[in-house]
Amino acid sequence: MNNLNVCLTPALIPLFDVENYIVVVIDIFRATSSISYGIENGAEAIIPVSEVEECFAYQDKFTHYLLAAERNGEVVAGFDFGNSPFSYTREKVSDKTIVLTTTNGTHALQRSIKAKKVIIGSFLNLTSVCNWLKDQQEDILLVCAGWKNNFNLEDTLFAGAVVDQLKPAGFVLDDAAIAAYDLFQIGKGDISAYLKKTSHSERLKALGIEADIEFCLQTDLTTAIPILKGEKLIKLL
Amino acid sequence: MNNLNVCLTPALIPLFDVENYIVVVIDIFRATSSISYGIENGAEAIIPVSEVEECFAYQDKFTHYLLAAERNGEVVAGFDFGNSPFSYTREKVSDKTIVLTTTNGTHALQRSIKAKKVIIGSFLNLTSVCNWLKDQQEDILLVCAGWKNNFNLEDTLFAGAVVDQLKPAGFVLDDAAIAAYDLFQIGKGDISAYLKKTSHSERLKALGIEADIEFCLQTDLTTAIPILKGEKLIKLL
Repeated sequence: MNNLNVCLTPALIPLFDVENYIVVVIDIFRATSSISYGIENGAEAIIPVSEVEECFAYQDKFTHYLLAAERNGEVVAGFDFGNSPFSYTREKVSDKTIVLTTTNGTHALQRSIKAKKVIIGSFLNLTSVCNWLKDQQEDILLVCAGWKNNFNLEDTLFAGAVVDQLKPAGFVLDDAAIAAYDLFQIGKGDISAYLKKTSHSERLKALGIEADIEFCLQTDLTTAIPILKGEKLIKLL
Repeated sequence: MNNLNVCLTPALIPLFDVENYIVVVIDIFRATSSISYGIENGAEAIIPVSEVEECFAYQDKFTHYLLAAERNGEVVAGFDFGNSPFSYTREKVSDKTIVLTTTNGTHALQRSIKAKKVIIGSFLNLTSVCNWLKDQQEDILLVCAGWKNNFNLEDTLFAGAVVDQLKPAGFVLDDAAIAAYDLFQIGKGDISAYLKKTSHSERLKALGIEADIEFCLQTDLTTAIPILKGEKLIKLL
């Protein structure tokens, strides 16, 4: 039987031999949701970077790349758009390469880079990701991007949603996978309400992204699975 | 309002400014349970160390100290007893100083050392710890010792039990505290059964400590609260 493990924050990635796993990177609000939606809508590639300056370095070399960056909820001056999934519509991103600044999401991706494969998960492509994972016959590590290296509920709930779908296939779960699964059972009836009842929702309100949040919590709106090839996220299927 | 935060593994302690918190160290199987029981039973002090060799160094200086160490479930040759709470009865430990080797528990203690105060929590002294914490008017950090720096369920469930008692007093909870609380709601009816249903129980069975586990899951058997003073854990009250 294969292992299904959950890494609750990027700070814990060194505890796992990532080269033995297929890694699913999870940053529900909003990086991996926006990436899933962008790849679904025909983006040729999305390049996640940590710093705004790195975006400009790409554009110096590749003038046709689109740049996406927000700081404190505002699109950064000189950028094409921000990190909202609403920026990743077909008309905006089809056949385009986008350089996207994220903090938590990029950090999780960079620390997972030695894995057998690194794919991107979100509620938007949940079932598609789970069906693909079931076919791989590999150990799976669900990496929650978290919040500044600490645990967060939304990424863990999504990990629990994946465990919920994969569990009947007979994986061996670690303690974090069991906890994520149990938390998802509590929250799944109304994930948005579950996240709102928490003090945690103050952080989300402070970001001023309520509409984005509702969008990111939609299940199975898309089927595309982004996969990391070199520095680029492209469409696996 | 004061904060009530949960640090799910010692690897995440650097994310917190521990000097602003009262820290509760939690290593249910078995370090903090045995320590709580030993201090309740009149031990003068318990000195937690990481390595077997450190125990001998203490005994060279203080020949009357008792040494406690197990490796792979066996009492280490030359030691007085192992890490089982059953070793910490009144007749064995009253008025004694014990040097105890632990791995996860000591690691969590060492990383918490700069906190305002560091106390020891376990199901055995749960309500006593919670009542004391309510009176302190300070931010509280519950540090789960975990398993080799990773998340484990038993320490998190105990953190949830503390949150359960403190929540009505109006603390601000972080995401990990909310998760621990919710997991405790699932498990509290029969914590032993909750931990057994998990694949996780294989690890516990492998340790051959079933009787210890049942003992450690008893709630409010004791009232003593061990507190760290220098290198020693002594009785706070």
